[in-house]
Amino acid sequence: MAYDFWYWDGIPGRGEFVRLALEAGKIPYVDRARESGGDSANLVDDIQRQRADPPFAPPYLVADGMTIGQTANILLFLGEKHGLAPSDLAGRLWIHQVQLTIADMVAEAHDVHHPIAAGRYYEEQKKEAAKRAEDFRAARMPKFLGYFESVIRPDSGWLTEGDWTYADLSLYQLVAGLKYAFPKRMARLSGKYPKLMRLHERVAALPALQDYFGSERCLPFGNGIFRHYPELDAD
Amino acid sequence: MAYDFWYWDGIPGRGEFVRLALEAGKIPYVDRARESGGDSANLVDDIQRQRADPPFAPPYLVADGMTIGQTANILLFLGEKHGLAPSDLAGRLWIHQVQLTIADMVAEAHDVHHPIAAGRYYEEQKKEAAKRAEDFRAARMPKFLGYFESVIRPDSGWLTEGDWTYADLSLYQLVAGLKYAFPKRMARLSGKYPKLMRLHERVAALPALQDYFGSERCLPFGNGIFRHYPELDAD
Repeated sequence: MAYDFWYWDGIPGRGEFVRLALEAGKIPYVDRARESGGDSANLVDDIQRQRADPPFAPPYLVADGMTIGQTANILLFLGEKHGLAPSDLAGRLWIHQVQLTIADMVAEAHDVHHPIAAGRYYEEQKKEAAKRAEDFRAARMPKFLGYFESVIRPDSGWLTEGDWTYADLSLYQLVAGLKYAFPKRMARLSGKYPKLMRLHERVAALPALQDYFGSERCLPFGNGIFRHYPELDAD
Repeated sequence: MAYDFWYWDGIPGRGEFVRLALEAGKIPYVDRARESGGDSANLVDDIQRQRADPPFAPPYLVADGMTIGQTANILLFLGEKHGLAPSDLAGRLWIHQVQLTIADMVAEAHDVHHPIAAGRYYEEQKKEAAKRAEDFRAARMPKFLGYFESVIRPDSGWLTEGDWTYADLSLYQLVAGLKYAFPKRMARLSGKYPKLMRLHERVAALPALQDYFGSERCLPFGNGIFRHYPELDAD
């Protein structure tokens, strides 16, 4: 039976990390908020009333009677059940650790344009965003990207000696988001991270993802986590 | 054999979430950075040179030949191996989901005093911190705390129908940190969250934690994640 997947319609957002795993793993799912015409305003309120174990926020996956929230937690579940991560303990924890570090960088990429209040407009915090963006470009991007570069195995080109995992797919999405939001900075930096850029290209070319990438289901970036405000970018 | 635990000396920080699980679970460990006299400046550089799967940042646990980074990932491991979480899939994912939501709030609590740059002094970002603190107190604290209140089971008073888990211990620490950092706001809010406040009291009274709480190993809050700047607090 297909899983029910719930995430805000209209943006790739954190949901995209889950979608890539579902698509690459050929796991049947229904993108519920999009199916219902984007009426996702009460996405969380409804489920919080219905369940004793509701998610704090989307994305969440309804699977096997469970409501699984938190992006990295959903991927942990999919990885274990559908073989999208090593099955041994060390490999399973390693890939989850990388995923949580990706999640940390995603949160920081969001806070670049919302450093004061997630619930208010960018235009209300532009001055602070400019400052945070400067630090993100100068300090945080090299720190995170250098770490990811260092943990890609030279032989396989992936995060383990084996095949790609859900965290490799997420690294692809992270790099894609950063290239969209900070094209100048990424153009300057990317030469320093050849393994990471190669991983990004290899995921983009995965046969299992071509249908999805070519479909209307795969949304472009926009006003989500990764946003391109030219004034926040610089090389 | 005792686990090696590594975290910056001098503050409870994210390490405390792990310490509480180790202590309450009676799991032998050595707090390495403290044992070596606080020389933790190269805590991550060294391990990143030595391992193919190094952590991005402390805390990390060296256990059974693995180097396990990311607070929630360490707790996932401890929960599975030492029975600090339900052993069934649904319960395991549920507790991890709550832990990841706690981690989200911890990150936001940190960014209240460092909204622009984690690597610079609070004094350099005081004006922005005042704005972020206002939003944190008004919007984020009720949102997170209301969620945690809603998912504590009325019968058990814990996050599952069973006994405490590592995430219950972390909820204790989160509330303790918020009470330290925002005493006025918490005094005003806490009446709205009776289950959460009761959980906090029950963890504080757990027999397995009394030796630790009474020892010098249990450090007071200070210049870590949870900081008390009176100008950032208000009821």
